[in-house]
Amino acid sequence: MTSTISINDSQKLQLSPLEVPNRLLLGPGPSNAHPAVLQAMNTTPLGHLDPAFLALMDEIQSLLRYVWQTENPHTIAVSGTGTAAMEATLANTVEPGDVVLIGVAGYFGNRLVDMAGRYGADVRTITKPWGQVFSVDEIKTALETHKPAILALVHAETSTGARQPLEDVGELCHKYGTLLLVDTVTSLGGVPIFLDEWGVDLAYSCSQKGLGCSPGASPFTMSPRAMEKLQKRETKVANWYLDMLLLGKYWGNERIYHHTAPINLYYGLREALRLVAEESLTNCWQRHQKNVEYLWESLESIGLKMHVAKEYRLPTLTTVCIPDGVDGKAVAKQLLLEHNIEVGGGLGELAGKVWRVGLMGFNSRPENVDRLVEALEQVLGK
Amino acid sequence: MTSTISINDSQKLQLSPLEVPNRLLLGPGPSNAHPAVLQAMNTTPLGHLDPAFLALMDEIQSLLRYVWQTENPHTIAVSGTGTAAMEATLANTVEPGDVVLIGVAGYFGNRLVDMAGRYGADVRTITKPWGQVFSVDEIKTALETHKPAILALVHAETSTGARQPLEDVGELCHKYGTLLLVDTVTSLGGVPIFLDEWGVDLAYSCSQKGLGCSPGASPFTMSPRAMEKLQKRETKVANWYLDMLLLGKYWGNERIYHHTAPINLYYGLREALRLVAEESLTNCWQRHQKNVEYLWESLESIGLKMHVAKEYRLPTLTTVCIPDGVDGKAVAKQLLLEHNIEVGGGLGELAGKVWRVGLMGFNSRPENVDRLVEALEQVLGK
Repeated sequence: MTSTISINDSQKLQLSPLEVPNRLLLGPGPSNAHPAVLQAMNTTPLGHLDPAFLALMDEIQSLLRYVWQTENPHTIAVSGTGTAAMEATLANTVEPGDVVLIGVAGYFGNRLVDMAGRYGADVRTITKPWGQVFSVDEIKTALETHKPAILALVHAETSTGARQPLEDVGELCHKYGTLLLVDTVTSLGGVPIFLDEWGVDLAYSCSQKGLGCSPGASPFTMSPRAMEKLQKRETKVANWYLDMLLLGKYWGNERIYHHTAPINLYYGLREALRLVAEESLTNCWQRHQKNVEYLWESLESIGLKMHVAKEYRLPTLTTVCIPDGVDGKAVAKQLLLEHNIEVGGGLGELAGKVWRVGLMGFNSRPENVDRLVEALEQVLGK
Repeated sequence: MTSTISINDSQKLQLSPLEVPNRLLLGPGPSNAHPAVLQAMNTTPLGHLDPAFLALMDEIQSLLRYVWQTENPHTIAVSGTGTAAMEATLANTVEPGDVVLIGVAGYFGNRLVDMAGRYGADVRTITKPWGQVFSVDEIKTALETHKPAILALVHAETSTGARQPLEDVGELCHKYGTLLLVDTVTSLGGVPIFLDEWGVDLAYSCSQKGLGCSPGASPFTMSPRAMEKLQKRETKVANWYLDMLLLGKYWGNERIYHHTAPINLYYGLREALRLVAEESLTNCWQRHQKNVEYLWESLESIGLKMHVAKEYRLPTLTTVCIPDGVDGKAVAKQLLLEHNIEVGGGLGELAGKVWRVGLMGFNSRPENVDRLVEALEQVLGK
């Protein structure tokens, strides 16, 4: 015991136990976790090498494959939020000088550009106004022009509410020897995805949206083709925490310690995935679609318009145009503080122009639509 | 809805709700979280930009400064486990070619070597047999020889149970223009630390040991001197998720969105820190010291020996020599499966030679010592 130094108490707050307002989270995420998920998290931790915990990791891997519709052996949860899983896709497969082609039609396309550059990629972009999507022809032309090692597309742009069709992209990519990397942060669990059928090589997501879990443990998957690129690297992965060669030895048969997993979050993720399987993926997707259509109708009935063309709208996240003369920020603040409902504001090109309304996972329920629309009517004075 | 592809149910497990064995975690971590911490995590999430959540982040920052005894403005929780916080220290301050001197006397010293290399450091090492510590003279000589930009030392080597004295190291470092980086993963909350008094510039820890929280949100701090090096970088931080310039805009006054925080883990961390403050840091340190001395006496009373010289033993983690002729792995397995008690095995130089016994945070209690020693007696047939 060092007794010669006296304790500095200047930062020693005297706090009461946690009390937080009970919000209905209808923004771009997080959404309210399913109560059973929170309950599962309130379970005493196991060690990260306990046989009972390793069995739970296997269950998570299987169920992640199910919700993504993939057979990729290397399908795991990353011990961080969706952004960490995003970074993991690039960190493992980009070697300095690799051409990485990125479709930018929103905030998260730009984030991929920033990240890929940090790993030494020769970044090329194709762009669209925020809220629109790329056609197969546009993608084909870009592949021919840039012959990238990796094409990165955002399946569900959380900043715009647009759904990028992916049905024919994988086949094209493979023709050009390109790996297809896809952001499914706002689609997994809520929007139909068929990773293997679509020929996707790398994908990442988060836990706190379509899956109805709490944030912090994030789905990651890579195809055998992507794994081959990783195994052939000439340099070490420039990120120890997210190195899939090391992580593969923990999640795979070798069970070699890498880092202490966020045990209780994995409990929650396992419960969230279990609930999706219980409901069935098809029912889960249909529920999201049905409730979002009810949202659109209800918003239109009070005179509001959606930003994205109906064909490309996400079932999980809707961008609602702020009417002329309305202070969008003030409305969101009033919804939060007077009605305990969170909606998101616009980012980038859409700042000040839209609200972002999420109906994801446990929150995709008609009563939440009613509660939001009623509150909006009041706040807007309709 | 894509209706032409049929759902593959091969990975759709039919699971029951979570049931896990109730283990007493006396290994190198995780430890059992305090029940009030788990209870706090079982609270409905807030949005990551909700004013109520931002206030909670401020509380976490203050209390982290208190437990570390620092006034560093940039003191935050990283959204990952301790390894992510470790990587954050190097990722932000190492520029390619920087000389980084690392004291290696255990597994985590080696991990720092691997990580620093990935960020382009010119890595130099000083080494000691596992279980020993560096003298101030040895450190001084190494500083003179290598004139490093950064000296990294492990305060509490989780693989050996040794406590590296740090009292006079910071002053030496500053004489040579060197930043002092310290691993406090197994010391924060359980071992006296005075970051500012000791002149430490960069430190990281975890939540699931001395603080008695669940793993996944990890303390990180950097001094104004370290921040200056970061701000003067010529290249972007080669890690987007852990970039402290971006994270500083979220944790600081600007409140610019960076990534979705692991909300419920922050609830738990806030509660864990609140409990430490309620107990007071001095009492918390004394409790750890008192209980570990009781552990040592109790183990000695059944004929077991400790690996580390008493002067340098950690109060949080003890390496216990496996007696000749005893199969250490079999004993640990029996403790786990028959007594629901987890202890750790040795790593690296100490593999097969020691058990690692943790008494950390909520688990540092005399009744846990009694339960372990009684079980060990039975298993060893004493």
